[in-house]
Amino acid sequence: MNATPQRILIIGGVAGGASAAARARRHSESAHIILLERGPDVSFANCGLPYHIGGDIPDRAELAVQTPASLRAMLNLDVRTLTEATSIDRTNKQVHVRSLSDGTTSSIAYDKLILAPGASPLRPPLPGIELPQVLTLRNLQDMDRIKTAAANASHVSIIGAGFIGLEMAEQLHAIGKQVSIIELQKQVLPQLDHEMVRPLETSLRERGIELILGDGIDGFSSQSSGIGVQLKSGRTLATELVILSIGVRPESGLARDAGLTLGPRGHIVVDAWQRTSDPDIYAAGDACETEDPILGKRTAIPLGGPANRQGRTAADHIFLGDRALRYPGSIGTAIVRVFEQAAGIVGYSETRLKAESIPYQTITVNGSSHASYYPGSETITLKLLWSPDDGRVLGAQACGKGGVDKRLDVIATAIRGRLTIDDLAHLELAYAPPFGSAKDVINVAGFAAGNLRDGLLVPVASLADAGAQVVDVRPAATAAKKPVPGARNIPLAELRSRLNELDRTQPVFTICQMGKTSYFAARILANHGFDARSILGGAHHQL
Amino acid sequence: MNATPQRILIIGGVAGGASAAARARRHSESAHIILLERGPDVSFANCGLPYHIGGDIPDRAELAVQTPASLRAMLNLDVRTLTEATSIDRTNKQVHVRSLSDGTTSSIAYDKLILAPGASPLRPPLPGIELPQVLTLRNLQDMDRIKTAAANASHVSIIGAGFIGLEMAEQLHAIGKQVSIIELQKQVLPQLDHEMVRPLETSLRERGIELILGDGIDGFSSQSSGIGVQLKSGRTLATELVILSIGVRPESGLARDAGLTLGPRGHIVVDAWQRTSDPDIYAAGDACETEDPILGKRTAIPLGGPANRQGRTAADHIFLGDRALRYPGSIGTAIVRVFEQAAGIVGYSETRLKAESIPYQTITVNGSSHASYYPGSETITLKLLWSPDDGRVLGAQACGKGGVDKRLDVIATAIRGRLTIDDLAHLELAYAPPFGSAKDVINVAGFAAGNLRDGLLVPVASLADAGAQVVDVRPAATAAKKPVPGARNIPLAELRSRLNELDRTQPVFTICQMGKTSYFAARILANHGFDARSILGGAHHQL
Repeated sequence: MNATPQRILIIGGVAGGASAAARARRHSESAHIILLERGPDVSFANCGLPYHIGGDIPDRAELAVQTPASLRAMLNLDVRTLTEATSIDRTNKQVHVRSLSDGTTSSIAYDKLILAPGASPLRPPLPGIELPQVLTLRNLQDMDRIKTAAANASHVSIIGAGFIGLEMAEQLHAIGKQVSIIELQKQVLPQLDHEMVRPLETSLRERGIELILGDGIDGFSSQSSGIGVQLKSGRTLATELVILSIGVRPESGLARDAGLTLGPRGHIVVDAWQRTSDPDIYAAGDACETEDPILGKRTAIPLGGPANRQGRTAADHIFLGDRALRYPGSIGTAIVRVFEQAAGIVGYSETRLKAESIPYQTITVNGSSHASYYPGSETITLKLLWSPDDGRVLGAQACGKGGVDKRLDVIATAIRGRLTIDDLAHLELAYAPPFGSAKDVINVAGFAAGNLRDGLLVPVASLADAGAQVVDVRPAATAAKKPVPGARNIPLAELRSRLNELDRTQPVFTICQMGKTSYFAARILANHGFDARSILGGAHHQL
Repeated sequence: MNATPQRILIIGGVAGGASAAARARRHSESAHIILLERGPDVSFANCGLPYHIGGDIPDRAELAVQTPASLRAMLNLDVRTLTEATSIDRTNKQVHVRSLSDGTTSSIAYDKLILAPGASPLRPPLPGIELPQVLTLRNLQDMDRIKTAAANASHVSIIGAGFIGLEMAEQLHAIGKQVSIIELQKQVLPQLDHEMVRPLETSLRERGIELILGDGIDGFSSQSSGIGVQLKSGRTLATELVILSIGVRPESGLARDAGLTLGPRGHIVVDAWQRTSDPDIYAAGDACETEDPILGKRTAIPLGGPANRQGRTAADHIFLGDRALRYPGSIGTAIVRVFEQAAGIVGYSETRLKAESIPYQTITVNGSSHASYYPGSETITLKLLWSPDDGRVLGAQACGKGGVDKRLDVIATAIRGRLTIDDLAHLELAYAPPFGSAKDVINVAGFAAGNLRDGLLVPVASLADAGAQVVDVRPAATAAKKPVPGARNIPLAELRSRLNELDRTQPVFTICQMGKTSYFAARILANHGFDARSILGGAHHQL
């Protein structure tokens, strides 16, 4: 199969493109592999950019994972940076290009073409958007610009509280900047359900970061001391530097102009081997659509992991044909650190399931990052969503100060295996006191989900949804320290002897610290004939 | 179903027994639940015992997760400590018991009986085994004895280098003891394959802990200054305290005497609902057998996680009958921390697959605990074993200084989902620089496994298995710093231009630092017509 030399042209030299080039070279020493890149850099660590700005990664060179020279030396690639593809001539199988250094144009022939142009940060056509203080972060040059601008700014405004926006907020705070975050949704990290990101919001506010939620941008204006951000609410925010992180747009113009099929949101449509509607043209990374393996829909996940593996898949198919391993789609596993907290998601959120009218059940539990009796254990809050039909896991979210990534990875793997809540109940996870618990929070979530299905647990998602008769079953001292508004305190140990204090004609809503004892209490009450419901996640999650 | 009050008798008040009792109470307020415990304590954190001895958990009370009083208060249990079950009268459904405090005997009737007696540390009938300095660790009293004895000892000998033995070694070293470890196998942690525990052995030796491997015990003798350990090799080791941690024996005597079916190694045979051969008697925890869901065999895994969940299963079946969730068997996920290193296993080791003549393929790769360009990243070595028939994962082992537990948990979940090496290649794990990599070591293991199957990677497990022509493809400076014995250095970047230095009539064995560049080099050579093979895990793993 490697006998025939091939001419492989790859447009885009970062995650998907670089992975495709490297994998293609493993298949063939004789192929002529051309890597076109519009910018000056190839294969840099784009997910690391915020951390150089904030100083976590002091050495800029650490982010240049590869250079054109290293790719030439190691992979014998024909790397052409500062070169822009201007159009694809599918009939003659060539790409027209223009040098961004000297403006000359030329054509490059291909046997197989791989499009990995990525996605560009959204810059909506707002008044003042062209002001020099309004920056976005995509590449090393953007990073340098932000770093320089931040050095002379005392206040920075971040528009968009998604993953990159929060990373930037953390890092800019770390170098002593005053930071405001403006987000159109009424919460940070709108990919997650609101109640799951409250700890992040608290953590941001505690550090003096201003959160302007549920507000949009009307435009920007030059001010003597910097730049003004006009908010839809009417307020004008005076700042010195604006970082736009409101999302990305697939760079599919070249594909569209070449007549390749695009999806409803402008992504390049590909099959499971990353082939576009032209069998000699592949696409990988942020510019293309993929399958959502959870519900069999189409999706687009602009993240580094999928991009890398899609590039690899394209290269495999060029050399192996249909024997190549298919790309199985993306489930959108994502995580962010915000100071001492981490939060992340895998699969569907409740908001998304609701919006798409997909039936689901959900539970939220707290657990320990490792054995609670061993030092350093932190509370993890885990929200699980599953299909009521078969118990199959549809998604999960987690937040906490340790072990969040591990639980997300376990659920991501469970979703791949189409595991159910019952499977989670009995996952056999590594347990030694410094690493885990005999019953991991994942097991506990599986238990709770099964209890809900089987009617042992009647949950209430929020304290606000509880009726009048709320019973706080924490020990009296704990309850007194941080009381639950409107609740009567009956510690669990006294509950059986104080049943007569409760009104049997009305539902009883139980609450505790972590959401476990309240379940125990509700079981006692239910087994004594009460209509008892447990408030999920306890005071830890609700207050 | 909860209408009928039941008399549930549970023998054993720790992991499996306590879980069964708690779960039974959730099902019914009216059941009379009796928890018998031979010792004075119930539901203590037995996995935490070494860490109180070493001071990581300074407060002994932290280990007493529950007390008889708290179980009475919270669960309305009839807790009877210091009470030993002496026999089971299955015909009359009662258990004869003896009080260990006053010697009185009595009988307790049951509707359902749950046996959770656990397993006791092995104490082989060696000369001198009865000496007061020869201790084992099972409960809080054992812990107290060891702590007191260790306070007056400067040298401690640990017999058996399994999980508990290594935890004890670490903790005793932490409080300033000289430690010798004696292990019959030629390696520490014989549950893992030898090459995977070399970093632990190095770490132990670097701290001055003596490893006496491949040696057994002939007996113990009293010495003026302490105790002598007679080794099979002829040496007598002078020490002051001996901790026996050579394994456990299921406490199935009561079950055996009652005529319940036992397995070949003396474990109580149970079905998927933890029912013994008597439908009114259940068993849970270390005393019973379970299914090995990987290969459908029978196994016995004396660990806390399985015990807890088996106890829960038994209680569920008592109240729900065959609607109860089945216990799915145990895959033996286990982890240990040894100073800065962690090592663990899930599923089958290579040694075990070989011993049982089960066909397998294996690969070992290195990767980063999180993005290598972000501070604090540590190397993880991951060994993967899978079935050549269908690529299904049969087991994995990991070691390193961070993120080992996460990778074991992902593989444990993958095994539950019967995932293959191709599934691992495309697992979508949480990636942000502080938490993961765009291509996690799990993905890399999946890639490498697929490459091996597809003939792209021809691996050599050990440098010792390589032929004469070994090429070190690391940069010259790296290769000079820690040379690979017998290797010629041709850095990867120069390989294509120096092919004529190699003998085409003989295989070429490539090696690098981490086992990745050597694969790249082998691909170059193979595509140029060489018989090229890559040495797994690189100098990091081999030297």
